[in-house]
Amino acid sequence: MFDLNEYMASKSQFLMIAGPCALESKEQVESVLSECDDLKVLRSGIFKMRTNPDTFQGLGDQGIALIKELKDKFDFKFITEITDPRQVGVLNEVVDIYQVGSRNMYNYDLLKELNLMGKPVLFKRAFSATVKEWLNACDYMSDLGEEKILLCERGIRTFETSTRNTLDINSVVYIKQNTNFKVIVDPSHASGIASMVRKLSHVAMASGADGLLIECHPNPVQALSDKDQQITPKELNQIRKELQEMAPLFDKKVI
Amino acid sequence: MFDLNEYMASKSQFLMIAGPCALESKEQVESVLSECDDLKVLRSGIFKMRTNPDTFQGLGDQGIALIKELKDKFDFKFITEITDPRQVGVLNEVVDIYQVGSRNMYNYDLLKELNLMGKPVLFKRAFSATVKEWLNACDYMSDLGEEKILLCERGIRTFETSTRNTLDINSVVYIKQNTNFKVIVDPSHASGIASMVRKLSHVAMASGADGLLIECHPNPVQALSDKDQQITPKELNQIRKELQEMAPLFDKKVI
Amino acid sequence: MFDLNEYMASKSQFLMIAGPCALESKEQVESVLSECDDLKVLRSGIFKMRTNPDTFQGLGDQGIALIKELKDKFDFKFITEITDPRQVGVLNEVVDIYQVGSRNMYNYDLLKELNLMGKPVLFKRAFSATVKEWLNACDYMSDLGEEKILLCERGIRTFETSTRNTLDINSVVYIKQNTNFKVIVDPSHASGIASMVRKLSHVAMASGADGLLIECHPNPVQALSDKDQQITPKELNQIRKELQEMAPLFDKKVI
Amino acid sequence: MFDLNEYMASKSQFLMIAGPCALESKEQVESVLSECDDLKVLRSGIFKMRTNPDTFQGLGDQGIALIKELKDKFDFKFITEITDPRQVGVLNEVVDIYQVGSRNMYNYDLLKELNLMGKPVLFKRAFSATVKEWLNACDYMSDLGEEKILLCERGIRTFETSTRNTLDINSVVYIKQNTNFKVIVDPSHASGIASMVRKLSHVAMASGADGLLIECHPNPVQALSDKDQQITPKELNQIRKELQEMAPLFDKKVI
Repeated sequence: MFDLNEYMASKSQFLMIAGPCALESKEQVESVLSECDDLKVLRSGIFKMRTNPDTFQGLGDQGIALIKELKDKFDFKFITEITDPRQVGVLNEVVDIYQVGSRNMYNYDLLKELNLMGKPVLFKRAFSATVKEWLNACDYMSDLGEEKILLCERGIRTFETSTRNTLDINSVVYIKQNTNFKVIVDPSHASGIASMVRKLSHVAMASGADGLLIECHPNPVQALSDKDQQITPKELNQIRKELQEMAPLFDKKVI
Repeated sequence: MFDLNEYMASKSQFLMIAGPCALESKEQVESVLSECDDLKVLRSGIFKMRTNPDTFQGLGDQGIALIKELKDKFDFKFITEITDPRQVGVLNEVVDIYQVGSRNMYNYDLLKELNLMGKPVLFKRAFSATVKEWLNACDYMSDLGEEKILLCERGIRTFETSTRNTLDINSVVYIKQNTNFKVIVDPSHASGIASMVRKLSHVAMASGADGLLIECHPNPVQALSDKDQQITPKELNQIRKELQEMAPLFDKKVI
Repeated sequence: MFDLNEYMASKSQFLMIAGPCALESKEQVESVLSECDDLKVLRSGIFKMRTNPDTFQGLGDQGIALIKELKDKFDFKFITEITDPRQVGVLNEVVDIYQVGSRNMYNYDLLKELNLMGKPVLFKRAFSATVKEWLNACDYMSDLGEEKILLCERGIRTFETSTRNTLDINSVVYIKQNTNFKVIVDPSHASGIASMVRKLSHVAMASGADGLLIECHPNPVQALSDKDQQITPKELNQIRKELQEMAPLFDKKVI
Repeated sequence: MFDLNEYMASKSQFLMIAGPCALESKEQVESVLSECDDLKVLRSGIFKMRTNPDTFQGLGDQGIALIKELKDKFDFKFITEITDPRQVGVLNEVVDIYQVGSRNMYNYDLLKELNLMGKPVLFKRAFSATVKEWLNACDYMSDLGEEKILLCERGIRTFETSTRNTLDINSVVYIKQNTNFKVIVDPSHASGIASMVRKLSHVAMASGADGLLIECHPNPVQALSDKDQQITPKELNQIRKELQEMAPLFDKKVI
């Protein structure tokens, strides 16, 4: 059974977090949970941040009930994005790790609220935050500190347009050399291209990162959001196998 | 007496909004209100967004009481930044225009809350938001619409380091040509250099902008935040005079 | 008659340089020279820098003969881009001001060659050069110095895509405050949108710039390159009139 | 003995190119050649591109003589930067691979000259070139084509300042998926920090790159240029060993 505290304390565990961009239905999540090998932490959006308010905004309360139901059947931890400090009341029951999305990195009032909650936070870098600003923002969650914050590099905004964002792999190496924070890489948002996720996952392990956050959907073509960057459970299992082969060279163990 | 609705409906009024970065004391704000010629809208921060949580975070509730007191003595409208939807309760009494700062442009839950409030919103562009994203985010305040939203260009983040940000004057021209939104330019943040504010104010009027948001402090050297980019009331009055001379050429009237 | 040395020494002359992106035919250039009011300096490309080698690369030697012929008939100075130090031999006869394009700002061997030639150089900033690098590169033409170098801000590369480039108007204000260099603004490349050239020309004068470099074609729709950003002689004449009205406010005189 | 054509034709050879930023002395290069294990291709600058003309500009002709002398004693191929088409005459005798530096990526006249020479070209991406522009520029060397061009990703310019540049590892994965070009990664310039070169070298192999270009100096502290990013031969040898362990997992062989 997966122990989150043990992971945070370990130097060698390489954690694979995966799941659909947005929670869409029971069938969808059950597929992911049953088809992905050894999935210990499920990610999925309940309250979605969408650029356009007329697009799918997530299942909301209905999604929370669904996760509760699934937790009785499957053994997994759940991570989802919080976008408003007032959501803490409803989310806290089902959430094991709070995700702060890139658009909320500077939402200091939200960070202060999470600091009070005491649960681990996966803290995404803003599109165009410098590493220094990102680390400074962690100070708003100083009670959590390096023991409970997982930094997540998800690509930065540059002039380049062939990929959705530019994975700043330098930042991962830099942070691992200069701090004790865990760093998770999100190859799905960093590229926006499903076929690049595999190689960028290899890159993440080679960089010294502590894990991956991957968008995975049983049927990406029909996903209600981010359809171009989600991979299938089968592809995810293949990546896991390859990372398991790489892991010993980097003193890591894939979990 | 200044009528905000009239300004929003007018094509020719060029509005000068000014005030200190942060509300620091009664003396400070009284200086600004009495020394700045014809100041119709005062800007100042009560709840500050600071990169570092250990720096001055604003006067909070004490600041609200202060504004109430000053409104009895001076005739002005007040604009301040809101950083959390839960601040609406305390702020609404003294606020005439809500400011959404660049770090909260993507805070859609905050935008939805302001949409319900019905008061005008000065909506700053995020550091690295495209014009398209900025305009899309306005859809979260569709009840306010072009009649009650003032877009504020405050400089974008680029590779250039000689100035704090890069004023995207293209965006002002582009938005005025393609939408009906009002656009306010913030030369203080766009440059981060007090001595550049004057010329950038000329630029703003020449670009077709509808006004300026300028940081002005009776004694910039002693400001608790943003000391390098605040100008004095005397400098502000000089800029106002120069803009009044320019205005007829651009079918504008400085207010 | 226009005196280039007088312009370089003057603080008040605001110079309008205009002409087609590329020299295409005698008729084309004659139209520009005869229809643009008071055009003292003609710009046009003879050796074009194109991203794609299969697109129109300029008239080359034939273009040089054409300019010679036109100089007998019209009174104008000629500016064109040099892309290779070996072109000096053929270009020197017809060129009054050498243009170094943004893609050659770091071509130090070219700069050294121009330093030897002694003619004025219009020196465009590279897409992504910092102001500091731009000024440093001028040191490769130290014999020309502030007396013979015209810096040209033509827009920088950022994440924004609604305009072709981002006009860095901050850089103009900054350089005028901190150096004695002349600064010319190129609103055509800075926006890539013909309809924005007029307002950006106003902006340039308000910023303290010393002139404009504008792409102007008798029939932009049929231009062999940059068709979206060229304006007509008639539009150029209208801009000139508006700038003449603005000029006294900025202690300038449009030439 | 190393065969360059064989490397260009191979899918599995992972080439390590190393050497000092600038050729400084016979002792310096001999140290590198004798202390670096199996060094098949030496890199070093003879004509340096420096931002500031008053800094060390390279040994020039003296450097060429030195390389000739060393080629009699050691078995290696030589790669150096060409900055002016007129250098071809002196460089061609000692150069096996021409390097086009990032500041010359858009120097199309130089590319056309190299296209005529027929030797392999290591073609660095400009600071802020899009992948599309980079690939388009290769069309100026269409006679060389995928058989003789080695693309080199050396970091792009972004807003981030904690590292000198931002390694765009996405671009490596993207180009390997979409073209047949070889891609070399330059971790020295991409980070500007010697201690990051090791991890970024691992990253390069994991990304699917075909080799590395590493700045290596017998005594980095005393280097006349780029002293912060050069590693020692001993550190290089350690990286080589680690890459040899990784190689089989990626169907590669380190040469």
